[in-house]
Amino acid sequence: MSEKKKKPQKLKARLARGFPDRSPGDIRATEEMMAKIKRVYERFGFEPIETPFVEYTDALGKFLPDQDRPNEGVFSFQDDDEQWLSLRYDLTAPLARHIAENFNDIQLPYRTYRAGWVFRNEKPGPGRFRQFMQFDADIAGAPGVTADAEMCMMMADTMEALGIPRGDYVIRVNNRKVLDGVMEAIGLAGDENAGRRLTVLRAIDKLDKFGIKGVKLLLGEGRWDGGKEGEGDFTPGAGLEDAAITRVVGFLEDNAATSVAETLASIEERFADSKSAVEGIAELRSISAMAETSGYGPDRVKIDPSVVRGLEYYTGPVFEAELLFDVTNEKGQTVQFGSVGGGGRYDGLVSRFMGQPVPATGFSIGVSRLMTALKNLGKLDTEATSGPVLVTIMDRDRIGDYAQIAQKLRGALNPLGPDGQPMGPTIPVELFQGNPKDFAKQLRYADRRGSPVAVIQGGNEKEAGQLIVKDLIEGKKIAETITDNAEWREAKAGEELVNEADVVTAVRAVLARHGLLGTGA
Amino acid sequence: MSEKKKKPQKLKARLARGFPDRSPGDIRATEEMMAKIKRVYERFGFEPIETPFVEYTDALGKFLPDQDRPNEGVFSFQDDDEQWLSLRYDLTAPLARHIAENFNDIQLPYRTYRAGWVFRNEKPGPGRFRQFMQFDADIAGAPGVTADAEMCMMMADTMEALGIPRGDYVIRVNNRKVLDGVMEAIGLAGDENAGRRLTVLRAIDKLDKFGIKGVKLLLGEGRWDGGKEGEGDFTPGAGLEDAAITRVVGFLEDNAATSVAETLASIEERFADSKSAVEGIAELRSISAMAETSGYGPDRVKIDPSVVRGLEYYTGPVFEAELLFDVTNEKGQTVQFGSVGGGGRYDGLVSRFMGQPVPATGFSIGVSRLMTALKNLGKLDTEATSGPVLVTIMDRDRIGDYAQIAQKLRGALNPLGPDGQPMGPTIPVELFQGNPKDFAKQLRYADRRGSPVAVIQGGNEKEAGQLIVKDLIEGKKIAETITDNAEWREAKAGEELVNEADVVTAVRAVLARHGLLGTGA
Repeated sequence: MSEKKKKPQKLKARLARGFPDRSPGDIRATEEMMAKIKRVYERFGFEPIETPFVEYTDALGKFLPDQDRPNEGVFSFQDDDEQWLSLRYDLTAPLARHIAENFNDIQLPYRTYRAGWVFRNEKPGPGRFRQFMQFDADIAGAPGVTADAEMCMMMADTMEALGIPRGDYVIRVNNRKVLDGVMEAIGLAGDENAGRRLTVLRAIDKLDKFGIKGVKLLLGEGRWDGGKEGEGDFTPGAGLEDAAITRVVGFLEDNAATSVAETLASIEERFADSKSAVEGIAELRSISAMAETSGYGPDRVKIDPSVVRGLEYYTGPVFEAELLFDVTNEKGQTVQFGSVGGGGRYDGLVSRFMGQPVPATGFSIGVSRLMTALKNLGKLDTEATSGPVLVTIMDRDRIGDYAQIAQKLRGALNPLGPDGQPMGPTIPVELFQGNPKDFAKQLRYADRRGSPVAVIQGGNEKEAGQLIVKDLIEGKKIAETITDNAEWREAKAGEELVNEADVVTAVRAVLARHGLLGTGA
Repeated sequence: MSEKKKKPQKLKARLARGFPDRSPGDIRATEEMMAKIKRVYERFGFEPIETPFVEYTDALGKFLPDQDRPNEGVFSFQDDDEQWLSLRYDLTAPLARHIAENFNDIQLPYRTYRAGWVFRNEKPGPGRFRQFMQFDADIAGAPGVTADAEMCMMMADTMEALGIPRGDYVIRVNNRKVLDGVMEAIGLAGDENAGRRLTVLRAIDKLDKFGIKGVKLLLGEGRWDGGKEGEGDFTPGAGLEDAAITRVVGFLEDNAATSVAETLASIEERFADSKSAVEGIAELRSISAMAETSGYGPDRVKIDPSVVRGLEYYTGPVFEAELLFDVTNEKGQTVQFGSVGGGGRYDGLVSRFMGQPVPATGFSIGVSRLMTALKNLGKLDTEATSGPVLVTIMDRDRIGDYAQIAQKLRGALNPLGPDGQPMGPTIPVELFQGNPKDFAKQLRYADRRGSPVAVIQGGNEKEAGQLIVKDLIEGKKIAETITDNAEWREAKAGEELVNEADVVTAVRAVLARHGLLGTGA
């Protein structure tokens, strides 16, 4: 950076592109949501483990979707010993590093969860940020697909714990082995076809968005966004022959079968030559059976051959949590809300570091996206709690006295139970900290902060050992009915003169009147 | 990175230098601690606001301590539009950006708090990490030192809310204006002396560590770590004349006066020529008076002229939360635990972006350091909760049945109250996900996970519509008293055969027997 010598003309306060601030409402809503998710994960026996934000670049590997050039998509920088470091782009690659590094101390099967911010060096756009939060759960050392099935069931439980009704979500399940079978069948097996395979998978992934017709174009010569040649952006296609396109499309159409059993039978028949596909189908049958026995029928956990999942490290079952209710997108169109998370089996990710295979499966919830969804459903309270009790300043020389009153109220209004836990909601108490010269300004501040009550003590009150407790909610109502100034002064809009010793009782009475105290306080 | 073409011989799983993983115990302890801190901040009327991890480098400014070279100390990288981005090194500089950017929407005085990870590009060492968590509270638009006083009192409240007894902590307070007066007096005013001023301030900051004698060396020609020339590392000194050294040392010795009033009077007399020092002393008197009136005497909030605080953006009062109890350091020496956080007034930080002055004050708690302190005091429970109820696998073909049992237990043992909140502690229930071939292995897994109870159903039990609920804690005790194999089988160590329909009741009975159920469940 030493080459940047020229002085900036005027420093501009601006967020870096794609990196948002978070409001009190969003922070509170996220905390509430994460507490619920955490409870579900812990009920399944998962324990928290967290990895750092920064890892050696090589430890993370290159598994990001849409990543045509190496290191695209990741924020990287060089350490003073020349080693490359990167901000993590997900929580799975760092977990694989953690498991390999601590393998001898880890008790397998190892169930862990973690919430954390991840970073993508992508072009930011509306609702598309370069830092976002994921909330993951993983089991390492669990070789059977029963672990994948449990993951799907846990995702379903998570959706319901968040208040998303059954029918408004579905966990869609596929298997990379089946997709591998499809790739073999159209002649795209082998390392040399990795790039084209990715293009085909991406095309399949677009079924929801563009329908069979759009997928056909993406499998063939490519697709114009506007629908006609020359209209909108052009996405180059995979350039498959017609026969290959027919095979892929047939596979996707199997999905429309009336039952899971039919869908799977049809795919099995179509790709009976592929060992991989047959194995994948058998695994999907197991998952489906186990889910069904446990009460997670296709209305909750549904086999769906069009699920792809973008990350390249998946080796077996992949799954996606999809929200089915309609929302209006930024173009004003009505669309299904769509994916809020997903995951799959990644048997090769830990073993990159080791001499032995370490099977693992897990999923990741996109916290910010899920929060948007829950706001849409009206399932999150993003409102702030009540405003603070305001202790106003009438006499600048007695600020210590006012601080003392504030401190007394803070303690008395927020009692702790015998277990050290608070007995009711937090009641904030503020000493006014702006310029106290203009008293009306202090009351305006209280109003804008939503304060339910103000405590006022001028010289006269002090002399009499008293103070004024002003019910601001009541006062506002009275003020609306008052027409002339004399009457105003008479009413003193919600004010009560009390002895200094009674300030806590009087403030508590106002709070109780407006339902702002919990049962405990 | 494209120049790194050569294939790595073998990928090694290792944490990047200075970036630690976090264990379940640490995560739980941190959460418990942060909930307590948050409650204190909210009682004072502070609301959460969070800024992103990444900011434009110029928006953060260069305010880090020990930063001789520009951009030292910060992790930076260039965006695709050539702009420099940095990982935040504290939470104050980003907050200043946030306030300036949203100034028209913000209600002053603006009380906010935030917890977050910050990053320093420094040499990592024992207990010295390159990412750590801070928990800040700030008031913007509060011009008076009453706001600084409130900050100090809130820090004191925070220490006590965390269980640190009075006498084991103190909030030490100084004023940069007083230090500025000292600098003027020894001829180090003006921009051209910024570097030497920093060296002098750093020397003063070392009073606790090296005593008056060490500070004298650092003010003069420099100091050898080993105590003698040539022994240990050498820290170059500020090169002050003897007269200047005497003035600085005299100032520090004022601190030993028997009362705050005497200390301040003595300093005032010594630096009566400096407008800045006199103003600073007056402010310290106000803070001291207000704290004392509110019940925060010098045993809690103490004026101490040796407090410096490293960050360069402070403009007025600075404060530091110090823990006074003894700990053993990595060299085996007994030392005071020392600082766990601090802060001060930064009236110039927001106005860097604006045409107008925006006074502000705040403090920051070092979460990880505080956690270490609380562990030392035995004030944090870092133990995991009880291990999971384990549903074992006897018959691989009936895994759906076992999953169903697990799911039934999960729901029944974790009931929600009418408010949607859990009625007791979380009782994890696990379906065994390792290789189920060897049953003894499943019980060993339960043992290592600390499971209190296992549920077992073999073919015979299934046929009879029954299952076995095994009390693993009781079973372990019985097993210790059993000497021969026949007796073992007889006792079936803590096993109970129950009807399938009674599994919840039986498991709950075992948990209750060992005190693992809350009052609600």
